[in-house]
Amino acid sequence: MLTALRVAVDASEQVRGTTSPNPPVGAVILDAHGVIAGVGATTPVGGPHAEVMALRAAGARARGGTAVVTLEPCNHQGRTGPCALALVEAGISRVVFAAADPSPQAAGGAQTLLASGIEVVAGVGADEVERGPLRAWLHRQRTGRSHVTWKFAASLDGRSAAADGTSQWITGAESRARVHAQRARLDAIVVGTGTVLADDPWLTARDPDGGLAAHQPLRVVVGEREIPATARVLDDAAPTLLMRTRDPHEVLAALSDHPDVLLEGGPHLAGAFLQAGLVDRILAFLSPVLLGAGTAAVEDAGVGTIAQALRFERESVETVGTDLLLSLTPGA
Amino acid sequence: MLTALRVAVDASEQVRGTTSPNPPVGAVILDAHGVIAGVGATTPVGGPHAEVMALRAAGARARGGTAVVTLEPCNHQGRTGPCALALVEAGISRVVFAAADPSPQAAGGAQTLLASGIEVVAGVGADEVERGPLRAWLHRQRTGRSHVTWKFAASLDGRSAAADGTSQWITGAESRARVHAQRARLDAIVVGTGTVLADDPWLTARDPDGGLAAHQPLRVVVGEREIPATARVLDDAAPTLLMRTRDPHEVLAALSDHPDVLLEGGPHLAGAFLQAGLVDRILAFLSPVLLGAGTAAVEDAGVGTIAQALRFERESVETVGTDLLLSLTPGA
Ligand SMILES: NC(=O)c1ccc[n+]([C@@H]2O[C@H](COP(=O)([O-])OP(=O)(O)OC[C@H]3O[C@@H](n4cnc5c(N)ncnc54)[C@H](OP(=O)(O)O)[C@@H]3O)[C@@H](O)[C@H]2O)c1
Ligand SMILES: NC(=O)c1ccc[n+]([C@@H]2O[C@H](COP(=O)([O-])OP(=O)(O)OC[C@H]3O[C@@H](n4cnc5c(N)ncnc54)[C@H](OP(=O)(O)O)[C@@H]3O)[C@@H](O)[C@H]2O)c1
Repeated sequence: MLTALRVAVDASEQVRGTTSPNPPVGAVILDAHGVIAGVGATTPVGGPHAEVMALRAAGARARGGTAVVTLEPCNHQGRTGPCALALVEAGISRVVFAAADPSPQAAGGAQTLLASGIEVVAGVGADEVERGPLRAWLHRQRTGRSHVTWKFAASLDGRSAAADGTSQWITGAESRARVHAQRARLDAIVVGTGTVLADDPWLTARDPDGGLAAHQPLRVVVGEREIPATARVLDDAAPTLLMRTRDPHEVLAALSDHPDVLLEGGPHLAGAFLQAGLVDRILAFLSPVLLGAGTAAVEDAGVGTIAQALRFERESVETVGTDLLLSLTPGA
Repeated sequence: MLTALRVAVDASEQVRGTTSPNPPVGAVILDAHGVIAGVGATTPVGGPHAEVMALRAAGARARGGTAVVTLEPCNHQGRTGPCALALVEAGISRVVFAAADPSPQAAGGAQTLLASGIEVVAGVGADEVERGPLRAWLHRQRTGRSHVTWKFAASLDGRSAAADGTSQWITGAESRARVHAQRARLDAIVVGTGTVLADDPWLTARDPDGGLAAHQPLRVVVGEREIPATARVLDDAAPTLLMRTRDPHEVLAALSDHPDVLLEGGPHLAGAFLQAGLVDRILAFLSPVLLGAGTAAVEDAGVGTIAQALRFERESVETVGTDLLLSLTPGA
């Protein structure tokens, strides 16, 4: 069952960033003998959900089989029919899912299945799915706002640029490749005008060979200053939203249909989001270099004394080439 | 054999900090049946070396046995007789050692043993010993100067104090206990006048219960400013050396009999040692907190642009309570 779930998770990862406002779900149909008969993932909004895609692939082999899904099958009649009903009609006899659906309209899928005599196993691999592909969507369902990951790259002494403003490249090639792979699965990527004016970044997701990735997140530039019409972020590689505000809440309100938001800098905008309590995860790429001068990774987070320090909990730590990648969540 | 070496390493760790200028060595004598008959470690200068202590403990059981030593037995007639000779006289038939002795006067112990018909196995566990208990001493033998470990504690954004100067405690209790355990095994601990004036630290090694550890390193304060006569670092818990200089080379010259030096701060003195190329290892305790303002872990390291960044290699990374401990060495 865990193998099938692994396949479902992988399928869902493929569609991350392309399904919003729907969740990126993966589904696998096992036939009556436990052999994989079909795999599916959420299609762009208006299209079939993961379960329906997997059922279509499985065809008649679904009868008497098992559906393994990363999210509780939905129960509501939206633009597409309820997935729970589709599973019943296909003659599925057992449904295994990871995360429960917290949304009031969609929830209750498990009840519908049970009422139809289908065996239901909930919570298998829930932790992995809730921290992984469905993290942002579940967060938005629960809190009403998008999930914000603040990513930064810094030296060991916490500098994200050297004294003269140069910052390419603090971290190594492996870390940069990782960042590009992440961008291709996001809904939106946010920076301040300061970063645009200092670095003139493209903020696009690129393949390892340098070409544009198939999916590009919405680029968002926040701040009251004007940015030049020639700024790279205004090219047509991806859509760009200019938000002439300094209010992080306003930014997130505008991104309510973009549950998975990456805040990529710089230090002042990060400080503002942190101070507003709007950072749900930190991804810190720490490089084994020292600078001794230059911009810090975060400025002005509203901390005056050590007792006010913003505390986080370690979610994971791994090495990425020569760098260290720390994942942290807000502390209790 | 690895178990006996483990015991020898542990014995050597017990005497670290108390043997300078001699190396902290550990020795184990196995009797002819391979059973541990005696354990010894270097005694303070003028006293017997580790091998002699272990032979004394083993007595007649040494005959036909094996000596397992963390360092090649010495060959020279110093204040104590050569250890190689003592092993021959005790009737040892096999000697296993980890690190080779690079010092011209002492080296050649292995030759003497071989010439006496003793079987010699060199290099067993050398890596662990060379990175561990004998690291500083071997470094001094090879380079002629003491080994400098720069230890710092910082937030994720590289601050070692908050905006108002408060810094206790950035890191957690486990990290602080680790620092105290380390201090008790050092030869000297170095800070700048700035740290004394800002924090008034004791710089003593304390047991977990808060009492003074048996061995205290020499406390060294570097800088041209006067420090108040009431400074805690001037109490009589440990000797203190005031060095009215700003030259890191001069500091190390004065500490030539103290091979294992810990540089504990602050950012300006660290910057000066880094710029002079006098940091042989960095121990970075990184706490999962953000400050967004305050003193950086290092200031003025002579780096103006990213291409000049001081590069290090990761030696190890571990979690210490909620903190992360990175050990780094100067890059190639
Ligand atoms: N290593 C990394 O991970 C990384 C990532 C990004 C940037 N950087 C570096 O960061 C430096 C740029 O720093 P930065 O701080 O200027 O970049 P920034 O944080 O991207 O931009 C700062 C600007 O954001 C706007 N802003 C919007 N809301 C704000 C608020 N609530 N509080 C404060 N400002 C707000 C302000 O612009 P207006 O004045 O226009 O309102 C402010 O000047 C560059 O050297 C760049 O290389 C490093
Ligand atoms: N978290 C940590 O790991 C940690 C550790 C230590 C300190 N700190 C923090 O660091 C802050 C103190 O910073 P700091 O930079 O003043 O401390 P510092 O580096 O200990 O002292 C700086 C002083 O060292 C002297 N010095 C000697 N050689 C020098 C050289 N080559 N270049 C520059 N200065 C030299 C100078 O004093 P003269 O002017 O007298 O010559 C200078 O003012 C405090 O807030 C403290 O809490 C944090």
